[in-house]
Parts: sequence; C-alpha cells; structure tokens
Amino acid sequence: MKTGQQYLDSLRDGRFSFFDGRRVDDVMAEPIIERSAREIAATYDRYYSPEPGAVNPLMLPSKSVEELRQSTDERNRADLLTSITFQTLQGLKTTSTRMPPALQEYRERIDAFTSLALIDDLRMTECITDAKGNRSQHPAQQQDPDSYVHVADRQQSGIVITGAKLHITGASLCHTLMVMPTKAMKPNEGEYAVACAVDANAPGVHIVNVTPVPRVDDDRHFPVSRRGRIPTCLVVFDNVFVPYERVFLDGQTEYATVFAHTLGLWTRLGSTLGMAEEIDLLVGLAQLIAEANGTARVPHIKEKIAEMIITATLVRAGAEAAVLHAEVLSDGSVIPNELYTNAAKYHGAANYNLMLRHLHDIAGGSVITSPSMADFDNAELHDYLEKYWSTGSEVGGEYRLRLFHAIRDLTADTYGGWQMVTHLHGGGGLFAQQLVSTKHYDMGHARELALRSAGLME
Amino acid sequence: MKTGQQYLDSLRDGRFSFFDGRRVDDVMAEPIIERSAREIAATYDRYYSPEPGAVNPLMLPSKSVEELRQSTDERNRADLLTSITFQTLQGLKTTSTRMPPALQEYRERIDAFTSLALIDDLRMTECITDAKGNRSQHPAQQQDPDSYVHVADRQQSGIVITGAKLHITGASLCHTLMVMPTKAMKPNEGEYAVACAVDANAPGVHIVNVTPVPRVDDDRHFPVSRRGRIPTCLVVFDNVFVPYERVFLDGQTEYATVFAHTLGLWTRLGSTLGMAEEIDLLVGLAQLIAEANGTARVPHIKEKIAEMIITATLVRAGAEAAVLHAEVLSDGSVIPNELYTNAAKYHGAANYNLMLRHLHDIAGGSVITSPSMADFDNAELHDYLEKYWSTGSEVGGEYRLRLFHAIRDLTADTYGGWQMVTHLHGGGGLFAQQLVSTKHYDMGHARELALRSAGLME
Amino acid sequence: MKTGQQYLDSLRDGRFSFFDGRRVDDVMAEPIIERSAREIAATYDRYYSPEPGAVNPLMLPSKSVEELRQSTDERNRADLLTSITFQTLQGLKTTSTRMPPALQEYRERIDAFTSLALIDDLRMTECITDAKGNRSQHPAQQQDPDSYVHVADRQQSGIVITGAKLHITGASLCHTLMVMPTKAMKPNEGEYAVACAVDANAPGVHIVNVTPVPRVDDDRHFPVSRRGRIPTCLVVFDNVFVPYERVFLDGQTEYATVFAHTLGLWTRLGSTLGMAEEIDLLVGLAQLIAEANGTARVPHIKEKIAEMIITATLVRAGAEAAVLHAEVLSDGSVIPNELYTNAAKYHGAANYNLMLRHLHDIAGGSVITSPSMADFDNAELHDYLEKYWSTGSEVGGEYRLRLFHAIRDLTADTYGGWQMVTHLHGGGGLFAQQLVSTKHYDMGHARELALRSAGLME
Amino acid sequence: MKTGQQYLDSLRDGRFSFFDGRRVDDVMAEPIIERSAREIAATYDRYYSPEPGAVNPLMLPSKSVEELRQSTDERNRADLLTSITFQTLQGLKTTSTRMPPALQEYRERIDAFTSLALIDDLRMTECITDAKGNRSQHPAQQQDPDSYVHVADRQQSGIVITGAKLHITGASLCHTLMVMPTKAMKPNEGEYAVACAVDANAPGVHIVNVTPVPRVDDDRHFPVSRRGRIPTCLVVFDNVFVPYERVFLDGQTEYATVFAHTLGLWTRLGSTLGMAEEIDLLVGLAQLIAEANGTARVPHIKEKIAEMIITATLVRAGAEAAVLHAEVLSDGSVIPNELYTNAAKYHGAANYNLMLRHLHDIAGGSVITSPSMADFDNAELHDYLEKYWSTGSEVGGEYRLRLFHAIRDLTADTYGGWQMVTHLHGGGGLFAQQLVSTKHYDMGHARELALRSAGLME
Repeated sequence: MKTGQQYLDSLRDGRFSFFDGRRVDDVMAEPIIERSAREIAATYDRYYSPEPGAVNPLMLPSKSVEELRQSTDERNRADLLTSITFQTLQGLKTTSTRMPPALQEYRERIDAFTSLALIDDLRMTECITDAKGNRSQHPAQQQDPDSYVHVADRQQSGIVITGAKLHITGASLCHTLMVMPTKAMKPNEGEYAVACAVDANAPGVHIVNVTPVPRVDDDRHFPVSRRGRIPTCLVVFDNVFVPYERVFLDGQTEYATVFAHTLGLWTRLGSTLGMAEEIDLLVGLAQLIAEANGTARVPHIKEKIAEMIITATLVRAGAEAAVLHAEVLSDGSVIPNELYTNAAKYHGAANYNLMLRHLHDIAGGSVITSPSMADFDNAELHDYLEKYWSTGSEVGGEYRLRLFHAIRDLTADTYGGWQMVTHLHGGGGLFAQQLVSTKHYDMGHARELALRSAGLME
Repeated sequence: MKTGQQYLDSLRDGRFSFFDGRRVDDVMAEPIIERSAREIAATYDRYYSPEPGAVNPLMLPSKSVEELRQSTDERNRADLLTSITFQTLQGLKTTSTRMPPALQEYRERIDAFTSLALIDDLRMTECITDAKGNRSQHPAQQQDPDSYVHVADRQQSGIVITGAKLHITGASLCHTLMVMPTKAMKPNEGEYAVACAVDANAPGVHIVNVTPVPRVDDDRHFPVSRRGRIPTCLVVFDNVFVPYERVFLDGQTEYATVFAHTLGLWTRLGSTLGMAEEIDLLVGLAQLIAEANGTARVPHIKEKIAEMIITATLVRAGAEAAVLHAEVLSDGSVIPNELYTNAAKYHGAANYNLMLRHLHDIAGGSVITSPSMADFDNAELHDYLEKYWSTGSEVGGEYRLRLFHAIRDLTADTYGGWQMVTHLHGGGGLFAQQLVSTKHYDMGHARELALRSAGLME
Repeated sequence: MKTGQQYLDSLRDGRFSFFDGRRVDDVMAEPIIERSAREIAATYDRYYSPEPGAVNPLMLPSKSVEELRQSTDERNRADLLTSITFQTLQGLKTTSTRMPPALQEYRERIDAFTSLALIDDLRMTECITDAKGNRSQHPAQQQDPDSYVHVADRQQSGIVITGAKLHITGASLCHTLMVMPTKAMKPNEGEYAVACAVDANAPGVHIVNVTPVPRVDDDRHFPVSRRGRIPTCLVVFDNVFVPYERVFLDGQTEYATVFAHTLGLWTRLGSTLGMAEEIDLLVGLAQLIAEANGTARVPHIKEKIAEMIITATLVRAGAEAAVLHAEVLSDGSVIPNELYTNAAKYHGAANYNLMLRHLHDIAGGSVITSPSMADFDNAELHDYLEKYWSTGSEVGGEYRLRLFHAIRDLTADTYGGWQMVTHLHGGGGLFAQQLVSTKHYDMGHARELALRSAGLME
Repeated sequence: MKTGQQYLDSLRDGRFSFFDGRRVDDVMAEPIIERSAREIAATYDRYYSPEPGAVNPLMLPSKSVEELRQSTDERNRADLLTSITFQTLQGLKTTSTRMPPALQEYRERIDAFTSLALIDDLRMTECITDAKGNRSQHPAQQQDPDSYVHVADRQQSGIVITGAKLHITGASLCHTLMVMPTKAMKPNEGEYAVACAVDANAPGVHIVNVTPVPRVDDDRHFPVSRRGRIPTCLVVFDNVFVPYERVFLDGQTEYATVFAHTLGLWTRLGSTLGMAEEIDLLVGLAQLIAEANGTARVPHIKEKIAEMIITATLVRAGAEAAVLHAEVLSDGSVIPNELYTNAAKYHGAANYNLMLRHLHDIAGGSVITSPSMADFDNAELHDYLEKYWSTGSEVGGEYRLRLFHAIRDLTADTYGGWQMVTHLHGGGGLFAQQLVSTKHYDMGHARELALRSAGLME
C-alpha cells in the first residue's frame, strides 16, 4: 500500500496536464489541483497499512446486503477518486464473471490487472464518454473517425488508440485511465469495441482539467466550493500505445456495452446516495435560514421544507431498496438492484432544480445580493453589515451573512451551476434513467394485473 | 373461529343499515352489499380452523422485519375489512404498550377485548373522522356539540355517546365499531376524549352505506368496479350505550391522539402498498393499450410509461424502506417506519392524477367514447365493432374494446373518481403527510450538514 | 331558417341510430338524447327570423378582432352543435381560400354547399378521426383497408365511401356529416384523400351514441351531468353514396390535411375558452366548499386556490392573446393565432388533473362518501344528514351536501371522468399541441437571441 | 436633457460607494461598474435633444393600449436604470392621483418633483425592501428600531432618516433614491410610514455594490455576463437629512403600501416581459446546441423544446393580456392589468428552473466540463479542441465550444445563479404573486358558476 506522500510523489511521472490554458508540470504547483491531491492523500494515510500484501478494505467486494450498506456508507465518506476506483475494480470483476468462456483470455487479463491494482494501491478513473461527433450518426459513420476512441494501429505487443474521452473525474490525479466503449457498437465497428487500462502518463495522453473551484482566493466567500473538488478532465488519446495485457476487449462488438453498464450501476448508486445527502443539506440550509429570517413558522415555508424532506426521503428510500434487493453474483459478491437505483437517481435528478427553487424562495434575494465578506471586513462597512444582517440578539449579522454565502456558493454561483448539471447528467441523463428503469421493471406482473382487471385472463 | 356462513349469519343481528335511501334489513338482500359480504366470507373460509382456541394467523403481530414483509403481502391479498381488523388489533396493542401505568385499567380492558376479538374471530373497523362542523373551530367551540362524538351521558355501568363518524369502511359488514378521537383535544374537552368498542347492532347506531359500485347490471361494462367493494359508511351514534369494559379512553385529553396516530400508521402503509400495486396496474393497462393501438414504440408513449414505472417503483421503494427500518416495540413486535411510510404515501397520492393523465394520453379518447358491450351484442352493430376496434389480425375488436372499458371503469367513471379521491385522502390528505414526514425527519443531521457547509461548525 | 320544432321534426328522417345497445327510431323517444335535442332546438328558436333569406348571425365570419371576441363569447353561450356548425362553415371557407386555382371546382362546390347550409339553417358536425387500425402503419398498409374512410367504389354521379369515424359530436342530432381525412396521406393513398358532406340519414350510415349522462333518474344526485350533453358518436359508413357536388376532395393527397388543420384551430380555441371557464368553475367550487368547511383561511388551502386562479388566468390569457394576434385572411375574415391557441390549450389540458387534485384536496373525502339525496329524503335519516352536514347556523346541511354532489358529479363520477379525458384529447392530445406550437413559434427570433448571447453574431 | 458625458460627469458628486470591500471614489475607475455607466450614458445620447425643455419620450405615460405596447417594447430595449426611472415616475404619478384631497400637499410635492426630474433628465431607482430584522415581527416590535427605514429625527426644514434598503438596482449610478415603505404599517408605526426622494450623494448614504459580473477578465469565457450589468446595491441611510419638499409621505400609515403597490405593478410587467424574452433565449440556445450535437430530431429533445416554447408563449400571453386589459386612470394614462401581470410573472418564475433543467438536459454535461477559451488558445491544445468539439464539417469546434460557454455563463455559473434567484424574487416572490392574483381575480364570477352547477342558484 501507499502512504499519502508516496501517492503525491507518484503523480510526478511526466504526465501531460493542462489547467486554465497553462501546461501543468507539477500538480502540486497549481493550488486548486493541489487541494484535491492532498484530500486523496489523506484517504491513503487513513487506510495505510505497512503489512506486506495489505490492501485497502474500501476496495473489497461486499458479501452480504449488510456489508454492502456499511461499505457504501464508508466509501461515501472518502474522497471521490477512491470511490470511483472501487466502482471500477468492482465493475471489472462483475464484467469478468459475465464474459463467456470463449473470452477466457480477457478474464485472465482483468483478474491479473485488478489484483495488481489492489496490491499497488492504485487509483483509477473511468473513461466512458467519447467526443461523439454528430450524435445522430454511428461511430463508423462519423466524418472524423476519431470521434470515438478506436484502435488506430496494431503492433506486435499491443494496440495504438486514438480519440478523446470527456467528463473524466480526476484523470490528472489517478494512475490508470480505464478506457471502455460508451455505447453499443455495430458488427462493422470492431475497432471501436475497445476496453483497456492506460497509464495516465503514457505518451500521447493529454489531460485538460476543468473545475468550478473559484480562482479568486477568499474561502469565506466560497465556503463550499473552496474545499477542494477533484477536477473533471478532457483526456485526449493521440496514438497511445497499450500493451495487450492491459487490453480487455478488442473487437468483440457484442460485448461493447457490458463494461459501461456494469460500471454505470455503481456510479448511479453513488450519485443517488450523494443526492439524498445533498438534498438533506439543502433542507438544513432552508431550515437555518428560515429560522434566521424569522420565517420558520410561516405556513408556506414549512410546506416547502416538507416537500424537500419528502424528496430527500424518497431518493434515500430508492437507494435503501436498491441495497435491500441487491443481486448476488456467481462469485458471492452483491450488486445493487438496477430498478430501484435508477428510479431513485431519476427522481433526485428530475427534482433537484425544484429543490433549488424552494431553497431560494425560502431564503430570499439576499442569497445573491449580500455584500461580500471583504465588504464585511471593511472598517467603514463592518458595523452596518453586522447590524443590518442581524435579525435580533439571537442571530448575529455575520452568522446570517455566512449562511447566505453558503447558499449562494452551493446553489447560485459557479459551483452551484456545476452541481445542478452534474446531478442531472451524472450516471446518465434523465432519458437514460427512463430506459434502464423500463428495462428492469417487472412488466409481466403489470400486464397480468391489467389483463385481470379487464376480465381478459379468466 | 367462524366459517364464512357463520360470519354471514352473524350479520343478521338487527343492525340499522341504509342504502340508496332504503332501509336494509338484511345485507344479503342488497346485491351490491351481498357481493362484499361474500368476499369477506371467503376469507373466513380460507383461514378457518376447527381447532378450539385457533385464531386467524393474519391477525398476529410480526416479530421480525422478514415476518412483517410476508404478512403484509398476505394481508394485502385478503379482503379490505380483514386487513383493517388486523390494523385495528395491532394498533390497539401498540397503543396499550404506550399507555402509562396510571392508565393500567384501560390497558387491561384493551388486552381483554383484543383477546376476545381474536377468539371470536370478529371483524372490526376504525371510526375516526368526525362530522367536525366548522373546521376552523375546536370541538368545544362548535355550535352543535355533537359535531364530534362525545360522552353525552354517563350511567352506572357505562357511557352514552352521541355524534357521527364519516368515511367508515364496512361498518355494515363488521361486528365492532372501534371509535376513537380524530384529533388532539384541549384540556376542557374531556368528553370528546373517548375511545371505545361499539357493537354494530347497538341501539342508536345508524349506518348509511355509500359505494361507487354501479347500480346497473352489466359486468362487462364495469369489469373492475362490479367485483365487489366494501361500502364506505356514515355511522351515526344517537345516544348509544357502551359498557365500561369496552371503554378504552374516557376523558384523558392528553391521550386523545394516540389511538388515531398508531392506527393511522398501519393504514398508510396499507394505502402505500395498495397505491404501488395500483400504479403497476395503470402501467400494465398503458402498455397493453399502447400495444393494441400500435403505439408501443412511439417515443413519447414510452417516456410516459417510463415515468409511470418510476413512480410505481418509488412508492414501492418507500414502503420497502419503511419495512426495512421498522421500529421494534417493547413487546418484540415491529411497526413500520413513519418517515418512509408517509413520504411514500405522499408521493403516490400527489402523483396519482398525473398517472391518470399519462394513461389517458396514451390510450386515447376511446377510453370514454367506446360503444358499450350492449352495443357490441347488438346484432346490427356487432360486426362493425369487432371490425373497427380490431387493429389487425393479432388484436381483436372485443379484446381492445374490453381494455378501453377496463381503463374507463378504473379511471374515468364512477369508480375511477372514487379511487382518485380515496388515494388522495386515505390515511390523511397531502398536508397531513407533510406534517408527519417533517415530524419524523432527522432535522438534526440536516442542520449539521448545513452548518458545516457554511463553515459555522469548526 | 328553421324554428326549434322544425329542427326536431327534421330529425325524424329515417336515420339509423343506436343507444345502449338499442336501435333508436326516434331520438325524441330516448329521454337522454331528447334533452340534447331540445337544447339545440332552443338555440334555433332564439335566433329564428321569418325573413326570407335570413341566416343565423352566429354562423357569420368576424371581420375584426373586436367582432371575433364578441362572436366567440356569444357562440360559447350557445349549444355545442351550433358552435361546431360555425367552426365547420368557417373552416370550409378558409380551406376554400387556400385551394389553388387548379382545384377551382372544389372551391365552387364548397361555396355552393356552405351557402345552402346557411339558408337551410343546417347543423353539421366534423367527422375527422378514423378507426385507424394499427397506428404504427399508414392507411394503405393496414390489414383492413376500411381502417380509414376511403373511396370504395365510384359511380357516374358520385363516390361510395366506407370506413368509420370516431368521437363525433352529435352525429345523431345534426343534418350533415362533414367527412375529411384525419391525417396526411401518401401519394399512393389517393382513395383516402376524400372530403365530403354526407346526409346523416344516407343509406349505410350507422350512428352509435355514447354519453356520460347518468342512466338513473335523480337530478339532484347529478346536478351537472343531467343537464343535457350532446352525445358523442361512432359513425360507420358502409358503402355510402355521396354525389359529386358534395365531394370537396377526391384524390389530391397533398391537400389531405388542409381541412382538419383549418377546422382544428377553431375547435382548439373553443376548447381553450371552455377550459378557462371550467377551471373558473373549479375555483368557485373550491372557494365555496372551503368556506362551508370553515377552512377558507387555512394557508395551504388559500395557496391551492391561488394556483387554480393562476392556471385559469393563464389559459384565458392565451385565448385573449390568440384573439389579439388574430390573422386576417384574404377575404377579410379573421382567424385566431395558432401559437397562442395551442399553447393555452396545452397548458389547460396538462394541468387539468392537477386542478382536480387541488379541488379534491380542499373539499375532503366527503366528495365521494356523502350519502345520496335519496338518503337525505329518507325520513329516518333526513334530520341526521341535515345536522351532520351543517357546519353552523350559516351553512345548512342540504347546501353543503349539494355542493359535495356537484363536485363529485363534475369531477369524480362518470361525467367527471368524461371531462377529464375530453379536456386532454379535445382538439388533439398533448403531443399534437406540442407539435403545432413548435411549428408556429418564431424560432428565428430565438436563434438570433442565442447567437447574440454567445457572441456569434457580430 | 443630459448628454451621456454630462451624465457620467454628474456621478462624480462625492457619493459614498463600495465594491468588493474597497471604497470607490470614482465609478469610472472600477471597470466593472464603468461598463454599466457607459451603457446608461449611451441611452442618454440616443435620446438627447438640445431643445430647451425637451424630455426623454421614454419617460412619458401611455395614453392608449397601443401606445403602452409600443413604449413597453421600446423601454425593454433600453438599459435597466432608464426603465426603472420610468416605472418610478409613472408610479409616483399614479400614486399622486390616488391620494385624497387631505393629502394635497404631498400631491403637489410629487408633481413638482417629477416635473423637475423630467427636465433635469435624472435617473432614479426604487428603494423598497428594508433589512427587516426578524420577519415574524412588525417594524415597531424589532429589537433594532433601524430594521426598517424610519424618521429618526425631525428638523425645521426636513426629516432625518435611518435604516437600510436592500436589492437596490443601480444606486451608485443614479441621481435619486426613491425611498418608500416595503409593507403595511400599523397605526403606531407612523415613523416608518415615510416616502421621500434622497440624493444619491446625500451625507450619510452608503452604497455597497454587488454584482455577478465576473472579476476575471476573459470576455470569451463570459460572453453574457461580461456585457455589463447594473450593480445591485445595499443602501445604508445613517441619519440622512431630507428636506420637506422631497418628503411624499410622513406618518400616514394607511398610505404606507400605496407607493410600493403602484410601483411594483410596473416592475412585475417589466420582469414578465424580460422573462418571456429570456425563455425565448433559452429556447434558441437549446435549439442551436441540439443542432450542433446532432440531436435536434431526437423525440425527447423536441418535446422538451416544445415545452420551453409553450412556457415562453404563455408568459408572453399573460403580458399581452395585461396590456390588452389595461386600466385607464383618471388622468387618461393607462396601467397594465394586475391579474394577468401577476399570473404571468408567477408562471415564469415558477417554471424558470424547469426550463434550465430542460436546457441542460438537451445540451449535455459539456455545459460545465468544456475546456476554457484560454485552453482553446493554448497551442498544444488548440487543434485537439477544434477537432473534438466539432461535430462534422458544418459545425466547427470553436462555434460549439462558444455555445457551451454561453449556456454555462447564462445558466450554470455565477451570472446564471444570479438570474435564477432574480427571476424568482424580482417584483416579489411566488407567494406575493399568489396573493396579488387572488386579490384581483373575479371570484364573484367563479362563485356564481359554482352555485349554478350545484343547482343552488335557481
């Protein structure tokens, strides 16, 4: 296993990374990225064991529903990249059990790679979404063949891939980029049916970091977003060589979707639990600001908070039911139920914007028009702000001002916009959730109920 | 225990019952009520055991979450009055465990009564909602003191109650009317804080049956609503004597709400599961009629069905989570979680009308404009209807016509209107669900999240 | 012009009509249909003029926006068949102005027919929706060629049509069935591109009446639905001969949709205004029952009524804007704006079910569980019902009971279900409204705003 | 009248202004504020006339509905401060006509002041919302008497006011602060019933500027928000002297709300039209990005755009109906209809967040994860970004990248959050709109419809 410092050192491996138009030679030299790196390093230190052969317990599959509930909770408290590493490892294993005997070699490569990754305590990220070009056309129809990552060349000991992957969490902070097809491929699209593990510093890999973390330096104005958030990246693969032992699919178009589907399930469970927790946070902010404003007993305010409570509870109920109805795989490990996971993810994503409306409705326009903490520090203004933001001896001006800034930062500023879009698209958009829910629903039961009701089943 | 026939015989006990403006001397002489009676009798026969001291297993409390899930499923398959009898017995026991030692006598009366009811295999119903008069005023403020059921007189061996209870399921088909206060009472409203078990044939009890079951006699035109539905009743208590051993609360205003709250929880869990099942039925009808219309692959139809699926799934997820997080009582029995139950009930009730809109949108105007089955039987019309309601060799005219009539009967006719209102108000309206959800939500957790986000908890 | 009696007499013309499985030789012998006939006769009498050559002013086109507003209001107060007759006449005229010189003969036939219809004071109805068979297939692909009305034979002096039309308002009460294609036809579907005026009593025409008017005879239990409602009909055309002078389209597939589009606009404007008025009615019932219940000052009740008010107002605003932005045709007459009409129709239809939920939420469960007026008349129950439905000296029991029955009849019973589906599908379903709104929206303006915002238009 | 330069010069009058914690001696020295000032100056130049006694035509009241429509359109194209100046002037005049003869002196002062303001070509802003302290308490109950602006002292020639006003548009860029009470006052709150015109540079006035305009300097990354937006301000009045001729209400508590109500109507009409236009912009962006992504023909995308179109159309319809039903005042000028204005404002505000969800759903996650324009300019990345953001030869990478940045800037970044909250609270929140709509609705008509339907009006 690695210590936090060993992890940080491992990132200085010549990777080709960019931020705000600048080349980044050392992630520790970019303060915004450094914060995230230190957060991940802290997780390393928390689980470090010097025992030879020790592995991070967060990375191990659950063997029962109860274990799944506990480990899910624990992973949710760790940093996001660690969570994604677990999802990737677990997804690869599930994928491996679903592959037919004819693809035995891929199964062996996957097992060898995941064992190594556990021992070496690697962090990895999922590279799924392609640039896609014109979405109304299939990969093989695109004007630019690189619109989807594909095998551009083939050498004796490995393949050469080209293309770009979007929305990649923490590509500049991980060791391994787990590349897989984003969608089903047609029989003539064999070169696009490629899954492989690529080192983050492999020649030809270009990583562009994007993040809503504020560029200006005032933690008090950005109490939420300044806390470090792992960048989301564009990863360009420009003729990148991948040795065969790291290639897990190469041309078998009928298996193109198995990776993304399997990994996506875990992502959506994580998103769903994250949303339940975030809506709880919105409830808490709504309640605190209502109390601070003196409106906590106003009927329509209470109703709006009740609606937020019910939404948070239903999203959580979906995740609970998904774990309760977990599927047991052939190797004894358990994976969450697809139907409940997707229905809950959909409900949270579809209602997140309404939750924001409720919170803003309750809080009032001062969410956006409150003077900054810099104004608060100005000697000529300080007393006025303390006086006029106070609502009585029990609610100080600074306290209420900071609540407004937390609400703004979380929901009505750069980071807020980022979260709004992320909740919508994380793990697939609303339409994807509809498709998956429909696929896993027990339509046979519903049809039988319907036929009986019409007297057509006697 | 009773056989079905013994149950039917037991209803000829001189009870004072009315239907459609007529006095009903024998419920078996009113075909619409007779159907419900026979359905209940069938449940009696199904669980009958001639063993002395045998009791109906459906009436026993669950001792574990797993038992709770199974018995809940089984009760949902029985008739509604049997379900309500269980809820009442279980609610009385829970209430009994929550009463303080000072009210020991009530506990003993409750225990004696519930034991007797089990042995005698009685059916009972909950009488909660009062006439209420002007809802902006408390019971003691009403112009008519009878607006809420109250102790009107007191005799040596018992009390005399007067008032009326609304929305009472199956009062004319049960043995015992379990009367309890509908809301909290003020200290000066002791005569309204009364709970007691009243025989359905006690002098002074008047029962008015109301039901959406169609009065005209064509099962094929009403495939759903003709199947028998237990009438909902108005029960008037005009100076009804109740012996003290059947009085479970008499003046202790601080306990006025404990009965209704405890029994209401079970009612809402039942409503919630019923709604999940009914939305599944709506999904099934939507899918079948879309297939029969040839529109099952139309994108906006598929999306609407997906939304219905997700709603059904979330309501069910709430019920699952309520059972998973069941509370264990001091006597070892378990009761469902309040928060999840109420949130799920709210979601189903709040969205039921939208589900109807989706189903009607998918099915088309023929839901209401399809000729009747009597038209279908008319020799001059029969072939035209078979021809024009068919949509090809795989979908016959009669099949599709009957689907339309099932949808109409279930959702756009007398019974449909009844269901729409029942789902909304069963177990309390939307506002009640908001209140209970808020009360049981972990606001402390939400506040902590909020304070942390604002940097106010370091 | 005709008097009411002349109209009634004119219906005894041998037409082939059915109701509830029975052949109807004389519409005046079926009380439910008779009511509608008498309502239409009353409109005849109201506008009757003995002057030779006089015509009904309701049938004349508007020449200005102000006239359009006034005549729209006036027609909305007349019976529905009269309104549809105007829409049909006006739609035919507009269609006529849109036909190219090459189809001069059709224009002349239309003009001759509409002039005759005015003078003879005929009532007519639109026959648009076909049986359709499998909706995923075009007319020419159907297993049964009669799935869409088509020219089945051709004779020297006219055509012979076969097929069936659904959802036809008042076919058994009008003189002329205006048949037109329901959708676009492909070049090889010339026999389906047929529009013609058919006498209601033409040999081969079969009319099946369907209506939500209650079959049982208690006006007080059905205060809304007993008032007479024109039946909706299935019309079967079994080899019906139509002389050429009544054929307005015969094979020109490129003009198949012009009739339905032009007539549909007027239908939707009527539906929209009707919905605004009906939501006003729901607001009124909500307000009255809240006052009668004593809850008119409860905050969440007031908010729900406010939402209903806002919805009613927006639907009306859309109709107002449609009239304000009316299009002036080449002959100087004006027609309402498509975009505003459709957007308003959509909004009303999409929200109608939510309005019902609000009303039911406000009114309470007594909407469905209130004893009938027959119970109210029962001597043993009368005083109890008067007493317990009263909420104080200002709100009598009968008054409140009748309010509940009005709400039930209008929204939660047979007629309520009918209205719910009618509002949704009248003038086309939600999806049709989306299509038409998109087609008529000024997308060029929106694109320009977008390009400017992105700095792409400098 | 003033030229643009004269306007800019007039702002250097010693006003006490702050921005981001800094004292601002000269607004032209703060680039972010300077942009707004120059925009306002451009409006001055556009309407400048050297004629003695000339006035800006945008400031004149409309005398007919047609004039109202035209001038409203024209003002919407000018800068926001000019619009608010018109609203203030017009609102003052309407207020003046509503004052009783007993308050003749106030009317004269108002008339004198508005005449002067016209001639001097002043810009003014409305100062309505107070700090409010604890909102559950009235002004006179607050711990801090300054929670609402009030008369703190009285001198021979004028009053002295203290307090703070929030959410004030352009206080640092106008000449006159029009102070008025934010709500109804009780009889004992005479010192809070104060309305007056205060010079922006009056001693004791402190102005704190708040704005979402980005602090970093990259127009291409912020194509919308960099275009200049008038700051919203906190205005503190610390013992500010106001001469009597500028005091328009001083102690008459029964008139406390007349100013805010009258001015609010114009604000809401402006907000409503602004929202309709902004939703049109969202439609345009949705359409362009769907085309660029190649998804413009995907059914669920088209449906979402159709819903946006319908929402934009209904908001606009409400504004159209408000103008169409304008009220004519005693002086011949017209003001928009309250009911339609408020219903439309409510609908836009209530649905704005859903419109954002649709836009984000359509656009995809690249709204937030697209690399910056600085990345685009980096030589090592430029070709990759051009290549991978392109979706074919017709859609260049830069074009699509800039669309994403426009969507982000407008809806998912600092400015986007600001707009989201502004649409919700501008002109009063959702609850305020409900109240005003209910107040102006024709409930008498609705009640009559309801009584008729129940047969209670014969």
